[in-house]
Amino acid sequence: MKTNKVAVIGASGYSGEELVRLLLWHPYVELTAVTSRQYAGQSIGAVFPRFGHNSTAGTLRFTEPKAELLATQAEIVFLALPHGVAAEYAAPLLQAGCRVIDLSADFRVKSPDVYKEFYGHEHPAPKLLDKAVYGLPEIYRAQIREATLIAAPGCYPTSILLPTIPLLKAGLIDPSNIIADALSGVSGAGRKVELDYLFVECNESVRPYGLPKHRHLSEMEQELSLAANQRVVIQFTPHLIPVSRGILTTLYLSPCPEVDADKVARTYDEAYGKEPFVRVLGNAALPDTKNVIGTNVLEIAWRLDPRTGRLIVMSAEDNLVKGASGQAVQSMNLMCGFAETAGLM
Amino acid sequence: MKTNKVAVIGASGYSGEELVRLLLWHPYVELTAVTSRQYAGQSIGAVFPRFGHNSTAGTLRFTEPKAELLATQAEIVFLALPHGVAAEYAAPLLQAGCRVIDLSADFRVKSPDVYKEFYGHEHPAPKLLDKAVYGLPEIYRAQIREATLIAAPGCYPTSILLPTIPLLKAGLIDPSNIIADALSGVSGAGRKVELDYLFVECNESVRPYGLPKHRHLSEMEQELSLAANQRVVIQFTPHLIPVSRGILTTLYLSPCPEVDADKVARTYDEAYGKEPFVRVLGNAALPDTKNVIGTNVLEIAWRLDPRTGRLIVMSAEDNLVKGASGQAVQSMNLMCGFAETAGLM
Amino acid sequence: MKTNKVAVIGASGYSGEELVRLLLWHPYVELTAVTSRQYAGQSIGAVFPRFGHNSTAGTLRFTEPKAELLATQAEIVFLALPHGVAAEYAAPLLQAGCRVIDLSADFRVKSPDVYKEFYGHEHPAPKLLDKAVYGLPEIYRAQIREATLIAAPGCYPTSILLPTIPLLKAGLIDPSNIIADALSGVSGAGRKVELDYLFVECNESVRPYGLPKHRHLSEMEQELSLAANQRVVIQFTPHLIPVSRGILTTLYLSPCPEVDADKVARTYDEAYGKEPFVRVLGNAALPDTKNVIGTNVLEIAWRLDPRTGRLIVMSAEDNLVKGASGQAVQSMNLMCGFAETAGLM
Amino acid sequence: MKTNKVAVIGASGYSGEELVRLLLWHPYVELTAVTSRQYAGQSIGAVFPRFGHNSTAGTLRFTEPKAELLATQAEIVFLALPHGVAAEYAAPLLQAGCRVIDLSADFRVKSPDVYKEFYGHEHPAPKLLDKAVYGLPEIYRAQIREATLIAAPGCYPTSILLPTIPLLKAGLIDPSNIIADALSGVSGAGRKVELDYLFVECNESVRPYGLPKHRHLSEMEQELSLAANQRVVIQFTPHLIPVSRGILTTLYLSPCPEVDADKVARTYDEAYGKEPFVRVLGNAALPDTKNVIGTNVLEIAWRLDPRTGRLIVMSAEDNLVKGASGQAVQSMNLMCGFAETAGLM
Repeated sequence: MKTNKVAVIGASGYSGEELVRLLLWHPYVELTAVTSRQYAGQSIGAVFPRFGHNSTAGTLRFTEPKAELLATQAEIVFLALPHGVAAEYAAPLLQAGCRVIDLSADFRVKSPDVYKEFYGHEHPAPKLLDKAVYGLPEIYRAQIREATLIAAPGCYPTSILLPTIPLLKAGLIDPSNIIADALSGVSGAGRKVELDYLFVECNESVRPYGLPKHRHLSEMEQELSLAANQRVVIQFTPHLIPVSRGILTTLYLSPCPEVDADKVARTYDEAYGKEPFVRVLGNAALPDTKNVIGTNVLEIAWRLDPRTGRLIVMSAEDNLVKGASGQAVQSMNLMCGFAETAGLM
Repeated sequence: MKTNKVAVIGASGYSGEELVRLLLWHPYVELTAVTSRQYAGQSIGAVFPRFGHNSTAGTLRFTEPKAELLATQAEIVFLALPHGVAAEYAAPLLQAGCRVIDLSADFRVKSPDVYKEFYGHEHPAPKLLDKAVYGLPEIYRAQIREATLIAAPGCYPTSILLPTIPLLKAGLIDPSNIIADALSGVSGAGRKVELDYLFVECNESVRPYGLPKHRHLSEMEQELSLAANQRVVIQFTPHLIPVSRGILTTLYLSPCPEVDADKVARTYDEAYGKEPFVRVLGNAALPDTKNVIGTNVLEIAWRLDPRTGRLIVMSAEDNLVKGASGQAVQSMNLMCGFAETAGLM
Repeated sequence: MKTNKVAVIGASGYSGEELVRLLLWHPYVELTAVTSRQYAGQSIGAVFPRFGHNSTAGTLRFTEPKAELLATQAEIVFLALPHGVAAEYAAPLLQAGCRVIDLSADFRVKSPDVYKEFYGHEHPAPKLLDKAVYGLPEIYRAQIREATLIAAPGCYPTSILLPTIPLLKAGLIDPSNIIADALSGVSGAGRKVELDYLFVECNESVRPYGLPKHRHLSEMEQELSLAANQRVVIQFTPHLIPVSRGILTTLYLSPCPEVDADKVARTYDEAYGKEPFVRVLGNAALPDTKNVIGTNVLEIAWRLDPRTGRLIVMSAEDNLVKGASGQAVQSMNLMCGFAETAGLM
Repeated sequence: MKTNKVAVIGASGYSGEELVRLLLWHPYVELTAVTSRQYAGQSIGAVFPRFGHNSTAGTLRFTEPKAELLATQAEIVFLALPHGVAAEYAAPLLQAGCRVIDLSADFRVKSPDVYKEFYGHEHPAPKLLDKAVYGLPEIYRAQIREATLIAAPGCYPTSILLPTIPLLKAGLIDPSNIIADALSGVSGAGRKVELDYLFVECNESVRPYGLPKHRHLSEMEQELSLAANQRVVIQFTPHLIPVSRGILTTLYLSPCPEVDADKVARTYDEAYGKEPFVRVLGNAALPDTKNVIGTNVLEIAWRLDPRTGRLIVMSAEDNLVKGASGQAVQSMNLMCGFAETAGLM
């Protein structure tokens, strides 16, 4: 039953923890190694008491991250590491024959120059960029199946790309006039011990941050440009809100002439009508992060505003699941030939 | 010292309660009557235990709302009633010589037709519309001083109008391309006992609602049109977020040609440099609702995005203070010749 | 695989919704009917969008609750109804041969007189009381296996009984001196549309309520008396805290002479060392509701205070899972001969 | 009007910030100096934007803490520093003729041995201990008026001592059987940048901590022993709950024989009937932290349980106001001969 061995490098952050949760209960894979400098020597159950009733969590212990060793312990290795560091592990693991699913930003942007512009340092492994597939299964399903290196998308990009790409591909909206206003729960910042993320600083607080040039713009604009077949620059404003999980994105779009509700509905239906993890809501409903928390589902709703002519598209996701670890497992399922929904329903 | 007598009709909702708070501790007015059908007979301190240590709150009791009686008890009467109902009280109170500050929507929109379009019923007192002054002191200070009837602005409109009007008046932005994305705490919905506002339904939840045609658009577009000297239609998306108080609004604006950072800075400085309740932040800071909660201050920050050419303006306010009751007291201060900041610092 | 058919009557409250969640993904049962007066005619997925990606949720519709009909649709019927009402459905369902798992208080208390004292009305079906088994699997596993009618325990009682019963049975504590201080999330109040449970009334608020004679005392004292083999009266103070889910209970107990840490440790180890859903923490850890949310696990920790001689025992559970629906499914698993953990891990 | 000059050393934590708030708007004192190593050189308004609309906050800058200099700038100096450090500043300031109000634990415990037992290091200024008055105005009003050194009580102690001392003094309860179960908001931990206090770690979490021997026991037991005129040891369990501010304490007490509701009511009425900052609730009400947040009020309610014979007393306070900075200002008012409520209503 448990046919494949998997490992997680850097399992002590929030997306690492979420990966561990999904992999511990996955029907077809066995979690054989987890690493964490901070927790080396302790069992998963001791570090994350919430998993304590799982038998693997009770016995499997965190180790120091060593690529050579991990290559002998697992066929698929997830990297839940900071950008810059992830690439260092990817190279030896790939060379040793592992398939790698990287949750950092290291392999998302195809151009080393753009990477440097947004991340502030030289790309650590430019030769691997060609190998990497952007792990958005609804867009790159076929490529993911064959990939050895997956660049799992960022949480904001997922919430923006899935609602926007079908509209761009179908030529329904003006690519030069895209505004994305996004609201993220605090786990999106990672498990960073900084003043800004203390309970008292976040509770009863709402605030924009990181504008106007957030790092995630690099991968978003790359993918939107591919969909539009022209260079796309967008407006993106992230906000921090006092929830643990969840991203709610509101997109302000300009429909092309003669685009009507029918065309939008048909486009979304063709794109996502059969997707297990994209839920396009009907006329009566609007997205709510509480409806997707803990699931790998992205909710989409849209309204054509007759007063302004704009198309408003809204999406909701769990930033740690569809926005990170769940989507990474979805890619793994594709790579291994499992049902795409295995361990995610 | 306490030279003027004031009353509050409909004091049992959240903005009514906030008015009571501000008036109980106001240095120059005496709160002589509060009404509430539901709580008639009970003291303020019994209904709102948080005010229990104020001596007036310990003794003043809620009464049934009767305009004739109230006219003998107070010179200034605040109406914290639902739209449609407020107008019924305004007429007899004005006739009896009271000055009236209405926190409902009844007198905000000058056109009875627009009122009907957005509120779904005939305007209950169209003859009074001419008398009413829109109670945004930073814009209508002189008129408020002379007014007998104030239409206190809505919470969303305050957060959008104050950042936008100076830019429109100075001709710095395109009036046809204004997008306002707003996030409101749950008290903005009033003290409504409805499923949607239960703790469990709001906690760990973020959701858009009421789009694309929210009622507040009527007063916003009226005031923006006046500032732009042309008809303005805007895009407005409200969201509900799990905080008790606070509105954070992000505005996406299109600067006119040759508008640069200097011009924006100068415009805001001229408009608000001396205003006690508008705080234009410098380059390093961004608004945060927790910095304005409990105060009558609206925070504004802005960024010109060199990548897109857009002007992003963000504001934060306490929806119950600057967005409702505090602003109403600010108007009262002007009407009575008090220091504008009396009881609000 | 899906060998048994199950139904839920009254599926629109929070514990009903949680039952639906657990049963939709349960490996061995098929959810064939859900009832709700309010939502009759709508699909599960329409009412609870969070389950929308489950195929059964997409098609199965809420119906009016009719016992005769349900008896033809399911072998096991869960009642998630208010007390008083539940008993009316239990009788015909049992007569028609169904097994019934009741989440209300109707069959928890063996004495109709005590029921009347605490619930304020005559017991609606006193003849069934003998049939009912109190659904606490860790205590009544054998009886649950054979039962046709299960009275699933209340959320507070679960958090208090599991930590206390082993100590009483082993004679380690004074039965006449038990104090239970409990903190509950707001979902514990049910999906009641009342002022007290509005977001703004609960957020940034902590308050005791319902003391000194909460209804749950009746079942707690019944079970504690059985364990102690003498009449037990306890002190119990519930508090409402601003979380959606979770109960944290702190018990103040008086150890009998010569009780030491070893005896306590051994008693808990014997009682729960092999239980899949009770996690007794070691010396370094203390319970935290966030470690049990969404799981059927109850966490226990204890400290002997050398300064006072008291034994402090603390427990944490998810009030909707181990405190309600998860525990009910655990009973179902026993009744059907499934693995006790099926659908709960 | 502003007759006295005051300074705050260590103004960058939560109670320092709250002190600054209270002193900026105090009618009779002028805040002339604030110190903070971290923020030296910046204005108050820059560090705490929420005070930005106060003119002093706009201009007064944080300085490095230097006792000699501060002694020339202020007559009263507040110390909002960690224990151990505070005492170092107290000595030179007192010598220079300043009066000192210390919010740390350094001067609360009269015995240097007990101090060492609970705080783990030698007392840094044992000679000053005799000088210090425990700053609980409702108990030590006369002594505070004459004091030069005030040890402002801890937040938990305030919530426990005020409800308990009158009962002990009147001989109504058994001093050997006091249990205090307390729930605190996260600001009680201070502005500590530690993993445990991150938003994601506190939100949807409730947990006990620091038992069974919390540091605050030292001052609580000292004061309770004085009230009972015998050595008192109590049980105390603190819990962390997801609110920013507020402490809710539930006390389990054993009434002495023949104590009835009348005696309890009379005792509290005599103790607190005229106190401006203690609100003893009637039969119908229970404390709720949201009713005291932002105020210097402590709410008390009590119930005699006829089933158990116990007396349950509950209190609510704002841990940063009555539990820290507000109470410190109340002491300052007494020391300066101001109205005790000045700046606190």
